[in-house]
Amino acid sequence: MARPLITLTSDFGLADPSVAVCKGVMLGIVPDARLLDISHEVARHAVAQGAALLWAALPYVPVGVHLAVVDPGVGTDRRPVVLAAGRGDYLVGPDNGLLLLAADRLGGVAKAHLLADAAYRLQEVSRTFHARDVFAPAAAHLAAGIPIEAFGPAIAAESLVRLDMPEPRAAPGVLEASVAMLDAFGSAQLLAELADLETALGPVAPGDTLAIEAADGRLLGGNRSIELRWRLTYGEAATGEPLLCLDSWGRLAVAVNLGNAAAELGLAPDRRLRIRRG
Amino acid sequence: MARPLITLTSDFGLADPSVAVCKGVMLGIVPDARLLDISHEVARHAVAQGAALLWAALPYVPVGVHLAVVDPGVGTDRRPVVLAAGRGDYLVGPDNGLLLLAADRLGGVAKAHLLADAAYRLQEVSRTFHARDVFAPAAAHLAAGIPIEAFGPAIAAESLVRLDMPEPRAAPGVLEASVAMLDAFGSAQLLAELADLETALGPVAPGDTLAIEAADGRLLGGNRSIELRWRLTYGEAATGEPLLCLDSWGRLAVAVNLGNAAAELGLAPDRRLRIRRG
Amino acid sequence: MARPLITLTSDFGLADPSVAVCKGVMLGIVPDARLLDISHEVARHAVAQGAALLWAALPYVPVGVHLAVVDPGVGTDRRPVVLAAGRGDYLVGPDNGLLLLAADRLGGVAKAHLLADAAYRLQEVSRTFHARDVFAPAAAHLAAGIPIEAFGPAIAAESLVRLDMPEPRAAPGVLEASVAMLDAFGSAQLLAELADLETALGPVAPGDTLAIEAADGRLLGGNRSIELRWRLTYGEAATGEPLLCLDSWGRLAVAVNLGNAAAELGLAPDRRLRIRRG
Repeated sequence: MARPLITLTSDFGLADPSVAVCKGVMLGIVPDARLLDISHEVARHAVAQGAALLWAALPYVPVGVHLAVVDPGVGTDRRPVVLAAGRGDYLVGPDNGLLLLAADRLGGVAKAHLLADAAYRLQEVSRTFHARDVFAPAAAHLAAGIPIEAFGPAIAAESLVRLDMPEPRAAPGVLEASVAMLDAFGSAQLLAELADLETALGPVAPGDTLAIEAADGRLLGGNRSIELRWRLTYGEAATGEPLLCLDSWGRLAVAVNLGNAAAELGLAPDRRLRIRRG
Repeated sequence: MARPLITLTSDFGLADPSVAVCKGVMLGIVPDARLLDISHEVARHAVAQGAALLWAALPYVPVGVHLAVVDPGVGTDRRPVVLAAGRGDYLVGPDNGLLLLAADRLGGVAKAHLLADAAYRLQEVSRTFHARDVFAPAAAHLAAGIPIEAFGPAIAAESLVRLDMPEPRAAPGVLEASVAMLDAFGSAQLLAELADLETALGPVAPGDTLAIEAADGRLLGGNRSIELRWRLTYGEAATGEPLLCLDSWGRLAVAVNLGNAAAELGLAPDRRLRIRRG
Repeated sequence: MARPLITLTSDFGLADPSVAVCKGVMLGIVPDARLLDISHEVARHAVAQGAALLWAALPYVPVGVHLAVVDPGVGTDRRPVVLAAGRGDYLVGPDNGLLLLAADRLGGVAKAHLLADAAYRLQEVSRTFHARDVFAPAAAHLAAGIPIEAFGPAIAAESLVRLDMPEPRAAPGVLEASVAMLDAFGSAQLLAELADLETALGPVAPGDTLAIEAADGRLLGGNRSIELRWRLTYGEAATGEPLLCLDSWGRLAVAVNLGNAAAELGLAPDRRLRIRRG
């Protein structure tokens, strides 16, 4: 039988020992766990960015326990929760919208429970570090086989906090969509898929000329409008040429071949764009 | 039986292959080890910062072998050592004060030995990378069960290099304390505990107004004195409000709710502060 | 028997979930793999830097499967390949020169095959993320015991893309060499060994005065020529003193004791230097 798998996602960074301490706590409970870091570089307190990242990553990860902590409300009355997803995974973290997009994608929320039982927390619970004191112990006990019902009372799935995600809007001739996240190469993923683009603009083919502008009328990298082409991959564009493509998560993305679209065009999460034919 | 646990701490960063090479060397000796990174982002050559980090992290990590290398004196006559701590852990690294604070907290130094025997080093020992050539092999051989006595002659615990830590000073009405480390959110941990604060100021209650200033009279974020409140957690303060609280390691910390105290107030390790009632 | 070892090297960074997703895909195929990160901080698209890093690291890592992806040509017609090295390792990645230096050092290329068989890829292969869809599955299947011949047709080793490395040039009284990579402390490794230096300058002894200048005549940290001494280790130099030494990989390196040679002297990969007696 495979050893239990626990993934970790946070906005802690890797400089201070927070992530290591959470892992230490878990190895004390389930010594043989496989620990897999998803990312600890979520922007500080950026719950929506953490949610987007889990949404992208978890479908490629085997069934396991997923600990995720982006928790600006630590120590206040936001609820600590565990969700059981349809695929068989558990998601552990704060009830602030961080977990729900991923849970939807892993088969939906089958069960939700409060993390309330002191038996599955550290003996002393601080007011400032629930990742260590509440969430990591819960994740480890789940991985060790403790049933979800043991952690605390059931919660109605509809009562879980859900993030407002900015939807794409396809009108004849124009698609409006928001930047969801930037990848390591500065490509900007939009919260929109190919179907949204084709609803607005009709079928697109490699080489088609498009134009993007900011929905708020402000400049993009010094220009009111950026001309780019629809491409199947980066290398089809010339060096330094901007392009729109389907990224590796199935969403539209603005990229610059061998460049950095975010830096060159001033793109950042939540920036809203309009795309037309050029 | 659980596979042996080896933790790693250094100032190497993760960009060059130094950390990976140390892990490769260890896996060559003890293929089934569990490797746990504490942090590799200790500031370059900052022995005291590394010591503070090990002090904070290791009590939450299961008993194991702890390899730590912040070693500005590599290749000179500083001693390579292994310490056995009362709790059952081994600490491996340079004798420059890095290991001793943590060893104290893990039950004290039960034994100390020089890393001298060539059998437990790489065949070729460079003058510039003892982490790979001396410390990693020693940690792996310890994890594989080689007794501490085999590595070299015993060392008197009193002869180990000990860092001078800046002590807190509580006078009636004023506590003076130094910044120990910054966490991922820019909170500044002080080398002082609640008892020190209450010795100086009497009992404090959530909402009490305090004031901090730099002991050297220089400005903090443009101000001679910063007013803040005693809080149990960040979220009790308004967004952007500075606060003093007990951090997750049991020490006083200056924080800004949803902000970055270090950046906003110009705090850095070793900066000395005075705290009074406001 | 030891669990299979898979190392990972890329220019993905650790902020977005790319590395985690590759690991998730591999754990889905070979749940018990040991995963070892070499580095994910190779500069974006810097194939030669990635090759230098693998060259340095892999000889210290046990025999295993080495996944390496620095792949500016993803989705174009560059070939996805697996190489079997003489020592028993497999190297998996794009055929762009990334793997070949390391393969040479691990005993040379014994076999090379195209990654062509769809059975060993993800079901859907994107145009932009072959690390996840092609390379990670191949590495995992190799680790699980699938023979190299199963992945696709054999490739002649001579047809593999080889990087042009800038060779050292030793003339009487002057050695010319290029910076290969910077380490975490800002030391600049040269593509030259002690033998090259002594061919040019005759035998060197600790304390010998040398001088370096840029081959293109431009300034180094504001100076036309930098005086430094030949040292066996950093700590033999005064604080802030520049030195030339043999680094921990057996190559010449320009360093500054307790300083940062790259920052202070303006050194970067590919910069070409001339070394004479001072």
